[in-house]
Amino acid sequence: MKYISLLGASGSIGQQTADVVRQHPDQFKIVAFSVGKNVELARKYISEFRPSLVCVQTKEDSQTLQSEFVGTGIYFTYGDEGLIETAVFDKADILVNAVIGSVGLFPTLQAIKAKKDIALANKETLVTAGHLVIEEARKASVKLLPVDSEHSAIFQALQGEKEKNMERLIITASGGSFRDRTRAELVGVTVDQALNHPNWSMGAKITIDSASMMNKGLEVIEAHWLFNLPYEKIDVLLHKESIIHSMVEFHDSSVIAQLGTPDMRVPIQYALTYPDRLPLSTSHRLNLAEIGKLHFAEMDFKRFPCLQFAYEAGKIGGTMPTVLNAANEVAVAEFLKGKITFLEIETYIEQALNRHTPIDNPDLTTIQEVDISTRKFIQTLLK
Amino acid sequence: MKYISLLGASGSIGQQTADVVRQHPDQFKIVAFSVGKNVELARKYISEFRPSLVCVQTKEDSQTLQSEFVGTGIYFTYGDEGLIETAVFDKADILVNAVIGSVGLFPTLQAIKAKKDIALANKETLVTAGHLVIEEARKASVKLLPVDSEHSAIFQALQGEKEKNMERLIITASGGSFRDRTRAELVGVTVDQALNHPNWSMGAKITIDSASMMNKGLEVIEAHWLFNLPYEKIDVLLHKESIIHSMVEFHDSSVIAQLGTPDMRVPIQYALTYPDRLPLSTSHRLNLAEIGKLHFAEMDFKRFPCLQFAYEAGKIGGTMPTVLNAANEVAVAEFLKGKITFLEIETYIEQALNRHTPIDNPDLTTIQEVDISTRKFIQTLLK
Repeated sequence: MKYISLLGASGSIGQQTADVVRQHPDQFKIVAFSVGKNVELARKYISEFRPSLVCVQTKEDSQTLQSEFVGTGIYFTYGDEGLIETAVFDKADILVNAVIGSVGLFPTLQAIKAKKDIALANKETLVTAGHLVIEEARKASVKLLPVDSEHSAIFQALQGEKEKNMERLIITASGGSFRDRTRAELVGVTVDQALNHPNWSMGAKITIDSASMMNKGLEVIEAHWLFNLPYEKIDVLLHKESIIHSMVEFHDSSVIAQLGTPDMRVPIQYALTYPDRLPLSTSHRLNLAEIGKLHFAEMDFKRFPCLQFAYEAGKIGGTMPTVLNAANEVAVAEFLKGKITFLEIETYIEQALNRHTPIDNPDLTTIQEVDISTRKFIQTLLK
Repeated sequence: MKYISLLGASGSIGQQTADVVRQHPDQFKIVAFSVGKNVELARKYISEFRPSLVCVQTKEDSQTLQSEFVGTGIYFTYGDEGLIETAVFDKADILVNAVIGSVGLFPTLQAIKAKKDIALANKETLVTAGHLVIEEARKASVKLLPVDSEHSAIFQALQGEKEKNMERLIITASGGSFRDRTRAELVGVTVDQALNHPNWSMGAKITIDSASMMNKGLEVIEAHWLFNLPYEKIDVLLHKESIIHSMVEFHDSSVIAQLGTPDMRVPIQYALTYPDRLPLSTSHRLNLAEIGKLHFAEMDFKRFPCLQFAYEAGKIGGTMPTVLNAANEVAVAEFLKGKITFLEIETYIEQALNRHTPIDNPDLTTIQEVDISTRKFIQTLLK
């Protein structure tokens, strides 16, 4: 039995993690979870999974639940401190970090120090402070298990292989909601249009990131840290069907790929069962004859400047990816609120990057400061 | 340094094995080889690789070479016994078996008993006597390393994975020289047309087998033995570009595939470097954006009855695959000589299968007898 602490239980990855646990009640148990503001879902999960710890966003919600579940022995907590308590919960073997944004960084670092393996769906953590997370994981000898479908694909492709033999990573990109539009056709696109992803059903932030191709940029940086390869050896390939989830080319020219119908439960479960696998019965199985054709094309960096920004920020390193990520988080939030246009996401990020003087090898405090000052800068652009 | 004994040095796989050895003179050395009737190539390889043992087909050729290379200390041998001597040569760590047809069976079994690992390009060996070869390899604890691109792909996809988690093998098929023809359009096709494979440059026998789809049938039987899966879990998928060389589906619905441009040096080298890899500089690297599209379609068993024969023979088991293979070997040889038509390959095999009463769990003598009697039967059809 593997005991799981789940951060971000109410999000898309969180709910699919619950699905995976449901399929294997003799293998997995959710012993702790955080759920933000979705108190209704917290009630449902408490009844279903009987956890020992539950974290919500506000003190009030925590007290409400406490009074409802009196005598159950469940510990209720809240806020940023509650997130940390959830992440390091002593009965858990593994932390599934499925929160959105760089808010996932502190819980991840704390869980690593508490020797928990990490199933990481929160890519912003590695983008904003990859060098710190990787170094802490190495020191604590804990596993960082990727949950992103692309990184899970690479991780699966690397099983039984040696790092020294890797030649190149090929991260596939569906192209997102606007892949068939020119840049001129992006003027005036609506939030609803941006949220309509052709292949994947995901949360709002990642769906917008997919439309701007920033998601792929964040994934490139994430891959750089997870698989220890320079940016020159990480390629992005347009593949609109999202069937080949990513690939590894070795120096003998052999390429290993992981494929499947788009279903996040597969990488989530793999992170939980690694290095073993378990049946996953409800997933739609791949039928390539039925699909007929898979398409591939070069990425157009002019069409998708956010991808270009990410490569550049990654190559510069230091605090540059922190700025990239913080600017993007705020800009996307403002777009979702209807405050800025889709194309302004790019221009805001570009301005934040241009004004920043990168600091090498930043510590956690520096990262925090840069994150906050970048968010403030983007706010000034809104006025 | 890995010392190699190479059976079938003059064939396509043999020459590409020499290519791989040339690229890594500090890693591999050919210490023994057999070369059939190609004495000119034997001379070239002797000068280039300085082997300790050379086997040719006839006593005369062996004496000729002996007199030319007097004082070199090279041992020259010939014929069937020479093949065995080459296979079990004591200085060799690994046998690359690249001969064509069931003639490869005895040397393989002898090499296994002599505790040599086997890089097996000779699929007929596993088709005709898979149960014996697998059992001997298990008893002797030697590795059977597949060289066929499809089986190498599956083998690579299985690295770091557990046998119990395999759900299905998906062997890809280019469709061969006649993939775009209907059955009606196969009437009167010439040997030259059949030898014109769209993707792979290979020997004559395997190219004809590809055109009839018998090659894929033999591969299905080979995969059954190598990967220990029932025929119901081995699928064949039409994929005309030969880029995905084959795939493994696991029970969590994840599919791992091996890809690359068609180049037999990749699987040959992998068998030699396994579980490691070495650079292979001259291989054309995969560029999916350049290729643009990969196509997939169901196999049509009516269009390709040889594939149907192979599944049926495999499922019946016993001596049935021996008959399938022997009938096919003779029929293909007769087609290449211009004695029978392309479609008669199928009808001859079908007649041989129909008249045979399978014998369960045959020993080597029985397999030999069935092999010989099948070949004789096909000869009677020719008169």
